[in-house]
Order: sequence, then structure tokens, then C-alpha cells
Amino acid sequence: MEDAGMSTWIDNIGNVHGRTNGNNPSAPALLIGSHYDTVIDAGKYDGALGIIVAIAAVKSLHVHGLLEKFPRPIEIIAFSDEEGVRFQSTFLGSAAIAGKFSEHLLSVVDKSGTTLEAALKASSVPGTAESIIGMKYEADSVWGYIEVHIEQGPVLEKQGIPLGVVAAIAGQTRINVILKGLQGHAGTIPMAMRRDPMTASAAAILNIEHICKHPEEFMGDLEQGKRNHFVHEGALVCTVGEIATWPGASNVIPGEVSFTIDVRAEDDLVRKSAVSTIIKRIENISLARQVFPRVEIKHEAGAVICDSDLQKQLRFAASQALRKLPSSVFQGDKQCIPTVISGAGHDALMMAHLTKVGMLFVRCTGGISHSPDEHVLEDDIWAASLALKDFLGKEIPHEEFAS
Amino acid sequence: MEDAGMSTWIDNIGNVHGRTNGNNPSAPALLIGSHYDTVIDAGKYDGALGIIVAIAAVKSLHVHGLLEKFPRPIEIIAFSDEEGVRFQSTFLGSAAIAGKFSEHLLSVVDKSGTTLEAALKASSVPGTAESIIGMKYEADSVWGYIEVHIEQGPVLEKQGIPLGVVAAIAGQTRINVILKGLQGHAGTIPMAMRRDPMTASAAAILNIEHICKHPEEFMGDLEQGKRNHFVHEGALVCTVGEIATWPGASNVIPGEVSFTIDVRAEDDLVRKSAVSTIIKRIENISLARQVFPRVEIKHEAGAVICDSDLQKQLRFAASQALRKLPSSVFQGDKQCIPTVISGAGHDALMMAHLTKVGMLFVRCTGGISHSPDEHVLEDDIWAASLALKDFLGKEIPHEEFAS
Repeated sequence: MEDAGMSTWIDNIGNVHGRTNGNNPSAPALLIGSHYDTVIDAGKYDGALGIIVAIAAVKSLHVHGLLEKFPRPIEIIAFSDEEGVRFQSTFLGSAAIAGKFSEHLLSVVDKSGTTLEAALKASSVPGTAESIIGMKYEADSVWGYIEVHIEQGPVLEKQGIPLGVVAAIAGQTRINVILKGLQGHAGTIPMAMRRDPMTASAAAILNIEHICKHPEEFMGDLEQGKRNHFVHEGALVCTVGEIATWPGASNVIPGEVSFTIDVRAEDDLVRKSAVSTIIKRIENISLARQVFPRVEIKHEAGAVICDSDLQKQLRFAASQALRKLPSSVFQGDKQCIPTVISGAGHDALMMAHLTKVGMLFVRCTGGISHSPDEHVLEDDIWAASLALKDFLGKEIPHEEFAS
Repeated sequence: MEDAGMSTWIDNIGNVHGRTNGNNPSAPALLIGSHYDTVIDAGKYDGALGIIVAIAAVKSLHVHGLLEKFPRPIEIIAFSDEEGVRFQSTFLGSAAIAGKFSEHLLSVVDKSGTTLEAALKASSVPGTAESIIGMKYEADSVWGYIEVHIEQGPVLEKQGIPLGVVAAIAGQTRINVILKGLQGHAGTIPMAMRRDPMTASAAAILNIEHICKHPEEFMGDLEQGKRNHFVHEGALVCTVGEIATWPGASNVIPGEVSFTIDVRAEDDLVRKSAVSTIIKRIENISLARQVFPRVEIKHEAGAVICDSDLQKQLRFAASQALRKLPSSVFQGDKQCIPTVISGAGHDALMMAHLTKVGMLFVRCTGGISHSPDEHVLEDDIWAASLALKDFLGKEIPHEEFAS
């Protein structure tokens, strides 16, 4: 950051900041952020890519002497803890900046019994509630927030294009389901006399898949145009990631099966309708199969819609960047930067509480995120850096950005 | 056993024997057995009931001075280890008597690292292969084998009758299935682009249930009469008792799901057809859903058909016993002793290698076996003891058994 002409500091929650004043230090600042923490056994792009790309874009303006002409301050924030691995506290760094830090988190303990408060104090910051709550940025001191991130999904790879503009970050509902049946000996209970929570769970899981593949069925009372809008590919995803049987022996009909459901949608109405359709279906299956359902909504977060002007500007900048790349790098339609939905949460989700947000996605290959196999092509990082530079440059009167 | 007029000993594998000579010590002996071990956290009837009922029947003959008139020796064997909890070695006691003990078991270790050999030696028996292999009974020294056991299933309770005669002990196939798909972020992979082994497993589990509920579909090329014979209630049961996802996080599409299938049928042809139908269906589902299946048959055991004469004699004796009970105990049709299939394995499975076998089932209430809640009515134990006494008495010339 210092090499890119920025003054730097670390704040009370461990976020690393770099700031440049542009030509008007008192104007509301453009914030550009991403996180520098990772999940365990992670790849190297999830989070860090967005910080590096931001620094590269700013440095490029700096070395051309253009940074001082930017009409407002630019502040890059490398957020300290987005994944929440250690304290199960997602978006810790961005929550503090957005004024959404919850005081109770300070007493949450990690696996070794260390509180967040103690961990912060051990890192030479105050670790008090006041010191973090006081970090909140005032809304009128901020112009907007931009985040570059790997897609963590297959859409851009499938479309064969390095960059995409995020229209929305999906809302999310996490549900725990427990089905209780009648435990029994695998050999002695005829099929017709069973109240088996495993087969009931299987029926539920297939129904959940069907519901999420066909939102047009439960959104049927909407007018056609609106339905088409809601039901495009990726608009709704449902995942059963964990399942367990009790007692869990191959020769025992389980007495109880529990599983999780993760439902995400760009539109909160679609997500809520899907959740209530899923719950109703589970209840019907349970009734028909004589098992007792317990359905608990563990977490719910609304969708964030990205600012439409920022989307336009990012799309234009991405298209410009693809044109500047050697033709060997990308031969597709440079006009057609796809609009994508982020199924994953991002710091932008928190920053949306403070200001308008925009996100640029970078293609990742192989479709494997949150794993050491996570991969991004070098050319695509180049394209993202160029796009962010062009996004910034558009506000600078200079022949490089005139085209 | 001594109180019932029997001479007793403990053999090299821990079986407890009680023997009476009848009026012909050199005639082939009637063996009556069950096991005295239990599963962990078990009820008190599974196993022990059959020993107590046998001793009660023999004692009743003894106190009436009838035991000496029995035309052959009666030997009760309380088997030492049927469940195989400690060494995963089912039917240990009966296998030794039937000549089916596998020498390699001696070096199998329990959870604390103790070998079966060491455990035997610590119990003051030789613990050598020879000492156990030498325990095999000669086939011509044995007349037949009878076992009384709780049903461990709901059929007798549903029919409202205390006793049932076992026609066959079901054969069993245990299968492990692993489906490998493409692991991914629960938020970022559109439904249509997933290769999700969890939903594939759900489809497989529902198909397995359907196959086992409708054997008439895959046994369709059999003639009608034979089909009806094969497809009666309880003729085929399938259970998925264990399932696990990897990596097992609510926000991750699993990369791998594994589950077990337990298939049991009274007829080996039905079971084998079911297994091959299940495997074919799993392969088809995997192909359609682009996951890779690995299906492994872990265990296979053929069905044992109980001797038809012993079945008849046990049915007659059970019917006699119900008539002798006070009418307050049982008011149903005393002629109609149901024929049942044992889905669970029993020592009779091993003893069938040595001699003809017959089994009498006693109703258990609440349907919960292998649990402290296992329950048998006292009157039903009375009925079983009377039935076994009548079964024995039929061979004794005496007015009590003349009717």
C-alpha cells in the first residue's frame, strides 16, 4: 500500500488500511475492500485477490502521477476476519467499519478457550467494546464501496469470460431439521410397519432439490414477467450439506435423522417462499410417513442489491479492460460482461449497511473454492486489475481514459 | 439347570451346558439353546429368555418325574457370545459347537487391544484353536436344535398373539455405498450445474425403499403363485442405517456421501435379485446425476429354512399351551399360531450347519429391541414355557400330554 502512494495504519480489530487523499481530502471517500483471512486448508485467492488487485490498480495510477487527480480519497481496507473461522463471527472486520459490531462477540471463545477480547489484547489493540464500536465510519464520509472477489462458482468459467459484475448478494436461510421415527431392528420390522426417518429424510431432500430447481411452481401466482425475472439460473440454490442418523448402525432402522438446509436467493421473496414451501413439504412428508419433524431456522439474512450505477460503471470498466488485453488472452465478446449473483456472503454485505456497494467477480477455474485447489488464471488477475484501474480512471481527466 | 435335574459344565468358549440323559443316554440328543450375552444398553429378554424358558420346561418335567421317560438326552446350551459386541464375532459360542469356529478370531482384538485368545485364557480356558475346534458336536450325536427367542419385531404384537413359529431365518446382504460428486460452495453453484452426491443418495435411498416394498416388480418373471409366496409382508426388508457426508458442513455441497444398506429376505433368490436391482438402480441414478458410485458387498449370508416337522410340532405345542392358559390371558384364536420369518440372525443359524433347527418366537411389546425398553409380558413367558414343555412332553407317554 505504501509503495502505491498510500498512508497506512492498522485499526482496533486488525483491519489494514491504506489511504490516499486524491485532490480533495475532505470529500467522501471511495472504499475498496476485501479480506486477508482465509478458511482452513484454503486456496490463496479467496479474499487476498481483492486486496492485491486494489493495490495494483491504485499503484498503477500512482506511478503515472494520476492518483493526486482523483476527485476524492481512495481507501483500501484489508479486512481482518471475514470467514469467522476462529470465533464463528463472520464479517468481523467489515462489521466494525459499518457499525454492526456486536459487543457480545468479545466474550465468544475459540476452541482453546481464548476470548476474542483476549485475542485482541494479545495483538496490542485495546480489545474493548468502545474501541471497536468507535471505529464506525460516518455515512457522509463515504462515497461508496467496491469489492473485487473470486466468483467461487462455475458461472464465469462456463461462460468463458474472465470478469462478471455482481447484481446482488444472495440472502440466506439456514435450517436444521430433525425427523424422529421409530428405531428398530433392521431385520425384524416389515417395510409396511416402519416409521423410518431415513427414508422420510431422503424424500424431503429430493423435494427440497425439486423446489429449488423449480421456483416457478411455488411462485406461480406472480405475473409471467416477474416470474421470469425470479427464476433464472442460480436465482435460488438449496443445499443439504450435513446429515446424521441416530444411533447410526448399519443393522438398525434409525430413530432419528438430522440434516441441514442452506437456502440462498437473490430475491428475499423467492427465498422466503422457498423456505415456507420446503417446511410445508417436510411437514406433509412427515405426516404421511408418521415421523415427527422439528424444523428450526438457525440463521436468516436478507439479500443485498448492488448499486445500479456502480454496476454500470464496473461493467463498462470490465469491458474496457478486456479490450486492452492482448487478443491471445481473451477472444470472446468484450461487450458482454455477465451479470452474476453472489451466492456467497462478502464484506460488501456488511458495507451495504453504510454505503452503496459494487462488486466485480473474477473467474475461478475448476469450480473448487475453499480448497487448496482453488485456482485463478494470471491473465484474469491482470484483467481485474485493469478493470479496477479503468473504473477509477474514468473520474480522472487524462488521455489514457479518454477512449 | 442343576435344580432342573441336569448335570452341568462350562466349555472352552464359555458356553454353559446342562444335560439330562432321558431314558437312553446314547441316543442322539435334543439341543435347546439361546445366548446369555447381550448388546450394550440392552433389555433383559434378548437371549436370556430362551435359556430361562428351556430350564423352566425341563424343570417342570423333572419335578413331575417325567424327565427320565424322555426318549433321548436333552441338552440346554446357554451360548456365551451371540451378539459379538466385544470382538465383532457374531455366534461365537454356537459356531464352536457347530464346527464353524474360525481360527483367525483368536487374534482379533477388542477396543482395549486384548485378543480373544488372551480373554479366553484370562477366563481359565485354554484359548487355543485346538481346544475350540475340538468342541464340534458330531452330527449323528444330535437329534435336532430348538431355540426360543423374543421376536424383536412387531408382527406378533400386531396380530395380538403371544407365540409364533419361525419358518426361516432371513439371509442377509450388507452393502456399503460411496457416491462421489463435485464438492462446492453452497451459495455459488447453480442447481443445474451441481453433481451433488447428497441428492443422488436421497434418490437411491427412496429407490431402495421402493424396491423392497415391491419385490413383485423385480420378481415379475416368476409365475403368479410363486410370486405371491415371495412377496408377502416381511419377506424382504431393506434398511439404510448409517449415512455420512464429506466434508460435512451446512454451507458446502458434499463431495462424497457414504451410506450402508442392509438387505434381508427369507428367500435367497429374492434377496439376490433385490441386491442386483438395487445396485443397478444406484448405477443408473449415478449416471443420470453425474456422480461416481462405489458399491461394495461387505457381508452375505444365506437364509436358513427351519425343519418343517419341527415347525409343525412347535405350532401344535404352542396351540396346546394357549389352550391351557386361563382365558383371561389370551382370548384369540388358539389354533392360529402365526408363521413368522426371523429377520434377525440367531444361534440357530449356526446350529443349522449341524442339525435340523426349529424356533419359537415370543411376542415383545413396544417394538423396541436392543434397548432397555425391550419388553415381554409375563404371561407370554408362561405361554412359551408351557409350549416348550408340551413340545417335549409329546414324546413322553403320560396322561398330562394325552390330549
